[in-house]
Order: sequence, then C-alpha cells, then structure tokens
Amino acid sequence: MNKRLQVEMSDASYPIHIGRALLEQPQLIADYISHQSVFVVSNSTVGDLYLDRLKAALKGFSVNEYLIGDGERFKTLQTVEAIIGAMLESGQTRETTVIALGGGVVGDIAGFAGAVYQRGVNVIQIPTTLLAQVDSSVGGKTAVNHLLGKNMIGAFHQPVAVFIDVDVLASLPPRELRAGLAEVIKHGALADAGYLSWLQSNVKNLLALEKDAITKMVLRSCEIKSSVVSQDERESGLRALLNLGHTFGHAIETLSGYGVWLHGEAVAVGMVMAADLSARLGKITWEDAGYLKSLLLQFELPISPPDNLNNEQLFAAMGRDKKATGKGMRFVLLNGLGNACLEEEVPTELIQQTLQAGRKLCCP
Amino acid sequence: MNKRLQVEMSDASYPIHIGRALLEQPQLIADYISHQSVFVVSNSTVGDLYLDRLKAALKGFSVNEYLIGDGERFKTLQTVEAIIGAMLESGQTRETTVIALGGGVVGDIAGFAGAVYQRGVNVIQIPTTLLAQVDSSVGGKTAVNHLLGKNMIGAFHQPVAVFIDVDVLASLPPRELRAGLAEVIKHGALADAGYLSWLQSNVKNLLALEKDAITKMVLRSCEIKSSVVSQDERESGLRALLNLGHTFGHAIETLSGYGVWLHGEAVAVGMVMAADLSARLGKITWEDAGYLKSLLLQFELPISPPDNLNNEQLFAAMGRDKKATGKGMRFVLLNGLGNACLEEEVPTELIQQTLQAGRKLCCP
Repeated sequence: MNKRLQVEMSDASYPIHIGRALLEQPQLIADYISHQSVFVVSNSTVGDLYLDRLKAALKGFSVNEYLIGDGERFKTLQTVEAIIGAMLESGQTRETTVIALGGGVVGDIAGFAGAVYQRGVNVIQIPTTLLAQVDSSVGGKTAVNHLLGKNMIGAFHQPVAVFIDVDVLASLPPRELRAGLAEVIKHGALADAGYLSWLQSNVKNLLALEKDAITKMVLRSCEIKSSVVSQDERESGLRALLNLGHTFGHAIETLSGYGVWLHGEAVAVGMVMAADLSARLGKITWEDAGYLKSLLLQFELPISPPDNLNNEQLFAAMGRDKKATGKGMRFVLLNGLGNACLEEEVPTELIQQTLQAGRKLCCP
Repeated sequence: MNKRLQVEMSDASYPIHIGRALLEQPQLIADYISHQSVFVVSNSTVGDLYLDRLKAALKGFSVNEYLIGDGERFKTLQTVEAIIGAMLESGQTRETTVIALGGGVVGDIAGFAGAVYQRGVNVIQIPTTLLAQVDSSVGGKTAVNHLLGKNMIGAFHQPVAVFIDVDVLASLPPRELRAGLAEVIKHGALADAGYLSWLQSNVKNLLALEKDAITKMVLRSCEIKSSVVSQDERESGLRALLNLGHTFGHAIETLSGYGVWLHGEAVAVGMVMAADLSARLGKITWEDAGYLKSLLLQFELPISPPDNLNNEQLFAAMGRDKKATGKGMRFVLLNGLGNACLEEEVPTELIQQTLQAGRKLCCP
C-alpha cells in the first residue's frame, strides 16, 4: 500500500510518495509536472533498467533526457555544464521540470543542475538506491564535488515531489543495499532508540527486501530525516545531527579516493567511532556503544577504518571536513542511543584514543 | 553625503550604502562581516586600482583574494571552479564572507560562487561600474554564461550589504559610463517619467560625473530597481519589466559575440525597438517613442542594430532568449513613458516592421 509523507519547509511543502510500482502510475507523477516539458537526468546503468518505464508513464509530455556516467567521479561541474548544454539544446525553458532518476549521485547533480538552470526550475526526485531513498532525496541538499573536497559546490533546492518505488531496490547490488541500511541505522541512533530495536528484530526481512518491512522502514527513516530538516532548513544547527558518523566517515572516503568506499560504509565506521568517543566522554555507556556496533555487524557493515590509512592521516583529514567551523572540529555525538548532540570542545587526546581503538574489532 | 537604502526581501533585508569615499570607511564595511575570514574576488584591472584600498579598510580581518581575468569571456563555470579552488586552498569555511569588488561580471560570478560555495556563504557587493551600481548589484541575481546562452547558469542569492562608492566611476572608460546610463534611462522609461525629465535636465552634469547629480541618480535608480525586485523576488511577473529592451538587446549581444557590444549599448537599441513596437500597437505615441530615442542620443548611446546583423538573424535569436516562455516570445513594452507592461501576444508582422524600422535613424 502506498504511503505519503508531507515535508513542510518555509518556502515549500512537498510530498514523498512511498510504495510499490509507483513508476507504473502515470497520473501520480503527472500531477506534479506544471508544464509540458520534462527533462530526465539518469545514468547509464539506471537508465537501462528504468528509463523506458518512466517514459511510458510520461506519455503525453515532451520528454528529453541526458544520461551521465555511473559513479561519483562524474559528480563534477563539467557534468553539470553538459546537462545544461543538453537542456539548452532541447529548448528547455524556466517552466521545465527536471526529473532525477537514479541514486545519490544522480539526485545530487540533477538537483543542482535544476537549482541553477536559469536560476532554478522545478525538480522531481525519483531515488533508485536505498541510500538516496532514505537520505539524499529528502531535504533539498544538492551538490557536486570539487577536486579539493566532496560536495563543496551546491545549493539548497527543494523538490516539488519525491517518488520512492521500493520495487527498484531488487536491482540494487547487495553491497549498496547494506550501505543504505547504514544510514537507516543512523536515523535510529540519532533520534529513535525504538526504531533501532525494530531494525534489530527485522534484520533478515530487511536484508531479504521483504516489501512490507522495507516500506515501513523507508517511511520511518524519511519521517525522521524530514522532521529534522523541516526544523532547520539551512543546516545552522539541528540538521547537523544528521551528520552523525560523517566527520570520521568523510575522512575515510576522502583519503581512500572517491568511490573506493561507499558512503554508507564509511558512515558505519564513523558511527562506531562517534559512539566510542561518546563513551569516552561519559555520554553513553560502553554497552550502548557495543550494541550499535553489533547492529552494524548484523547488517554486514564495516566497523573499522582500512589498514592502509593511518591515524595521523585520518586526524588531518577530519580537520579539513566542511563541518568544521572557524573554531575547530565539530562532532556529532550521542547522549544515549536515539539522542544525538553537537560537541565542539572535544579534547584531542580522546579523539586520538578513539582513532586508536578503531583499529580493534572489539570494545575497549 | 552618504545615502542608505534598505532593500526588503522575504528572507533577507539588506542595505545599499551610496556615497563618496566609502572604501575609506573601515567600520562601515566591518559591520557586515560576521566572522574573521573575508575572501575578495576582483579582476586584474579593478584589483590594480582598488584592492589595496579595500584591504587597508579590512585590516584586522583575515583576507584572501582571487583575481579573475577582465571580461565577459571569463564569466564561466571554469572560473567559478577556480575561485572555489582558491577558497578551499585558503581554508574558507561556511562562515566566510565573499566580497565582490568589480563590475557586473565580477559581481555575477563572485555572487554565484558565494551562492554555491558549501551551499551558500555571505556576500558583500562593491560594484565599481555604473552598470553594476544601478543594476546588477541590486536584486540578488547571480549567474555565469554557458556556451549556448548568456546567464543560463545561476542563482538568486541576496547580498548582506552593497557599497556603492561613486568616486570609483572616475576610473571608468567613458563608453562604459554611457552604457550604464542606458540602464538608468531604462529605469525612468519603465517606472518614472519624471525621472526621465530630470535626466534630460542633467545630461551634462551626469556625463561630467558631477558627484551630487551622480549620487542622486544612483539612489533613484536603486530605489526603482529595488522596489520592483522586492515585489517579485523570483522574476515571476513584475520583475520582468526590468528586462525592457532586453529581448532585442540580448539578440544583438549574442549574435555579435559576447563583449563586442556592451550590455547597456544593446539595451539602448532594444529600448528604441520596444518603444517602436509599443507605438505600432498604439500603446504610446510616436512622440514619446521619439523622446526616448532622443534622450538616448543625448547620452551618446547607439539607437540601431549593427549593419552586419540582418533582421532574420535577430528574429531567430530573440526566439531563443530565456525570457521566452513555453508559449512564445514575450516582450516588455510601454504603456506610455514611465509605465512598462508585459505583452505575450504580439503579431509577428509588427515585430518585423519594428526590425525594419530599426534600420533607420529617424522615426517612421
């Protein structure tokens, strides 16, 4: 059964539709297209699988498309320029609706192209990976990478609607599914301990993509994310809590080179380290930190950084993270499971201890 | 004497300071810098003239800078990427304030870089050409060009403050001064017939850069522009009136190649043609159309398109203008001097007659 969640932002309010076979419901999508023209951005992999189905649903509209390469390395300004070139060549106006059909990379880059095309056109997000469904499609953050840093060029641009078809997860490689589940666990860890328990009771169903469990999970994760985002659209405070695991995680991603680690995998390790640091500061028990680590293990996620990166490199890279303010490193930590908090004054010594402890697979 | 004009937008309110020697008043600027770091974007020409003066005024802040090449051809995504690279290398955070010191190109590109750097940082505009002072620095429009079209990639991003130092106009080439005056005349033509009369009484003072007349003029033009912009931030209706002369003007600019015609020069010709078309539709008298043309001539501005462009080319290029909606060409016309209006249903035959008439220097 389809679910609908309304996201309330100051300058926009838009629905997230979650359910099965959404791509086979033309009227559902058509209701959010204000004019005749649609411009679909997808990548070669997702395009092969779902573009024809989407275009069938868009019969009656004037549809043009552009396929980008598959992978984080295409998330650049050069690709944005190519998308915009294709939009101009096909005569798109300010009334065009851009549809982002794909995972996080497609959503970020198509969202950004839509945000800046003629200073902004309507965007519909159709996320096709679990990570994009529960995370990047909600909240209006769009971006591309700069050689010197991830997501350094971007905009806040809310979609007019998001369609989450859980059926498409069947074509997702298992590793990407698990990476998405890391973000789901993050939602529980930062806002809802009960959700963590529910996830633990449903490990098998979820890994097997049992549809009712998956739909329920996607809805709950979108609820948590959109609740946080609605309260803090420009990431001035509360929204930073969604970056649980990201200070450590981004360091791993950046140092390994984009694409070697999946984002969710790096966030999984980052959460283990954030929980470890929280325990060292006396904010959570070592038992709770262990519980989180064990849950990640049950979902077959990594819990320690790769051997080829040493702690000095990780520490230096953390300082360059964009979550750093003028003051210094900022961490999202845990005041108990389901209750994240911001911490700006963390003794360097404890950070070093956490990095050290991250090398062992068991609790300290 | 310094003037201050407050611009009211839905999500921001910011002042425009207008007067002499503003760059020598450190406290005035410092009040709008929220943190320690400032990143100045300028170009090689303006940088040579005013960067040291600005940096002296910013003593006490951590100041980094990036100079772009001088000219419209540098208004590209590649330059944005280079600016952002320099910002990352110098460790700019989300708390950095970007200062755009220069003409319209610098304002547009630095404003856009500020809009997208880590999804948006504070921007201060210090426009140094008359065109930028009365037009592009007000309203929060930022953009760069795509090979296939001018200003096709951009964002709405309001500055935290605008400083207009009329003293810097002394270093402006006379041709650029006159191009700026075309936009000033546009403000009168679209919103205030009395302002047009005042301009006519002050032709000599203004061309001689007499400071009181110039300050009064810049203030009145900014008032007209900001009044229109405040009522229509996203250019969905009213704001389009500011594009008086632009449908014809952009066609001339695009076909001639960026930089051959100055924007204001093209707008001057565009206004003559808009007035001609308005007279053909019975919206204004031929006398009023002639009055506007004569005022432009007194300010030594061009009033007809270049001989090397034929009317077929101009007509085709107008259809590609981004002001075109899904429906077709949209014109800003005049219902009398000082009273612009939008017109979507203009008979092609009349447009052709106007293009034809544009070849003659006198009224039809």
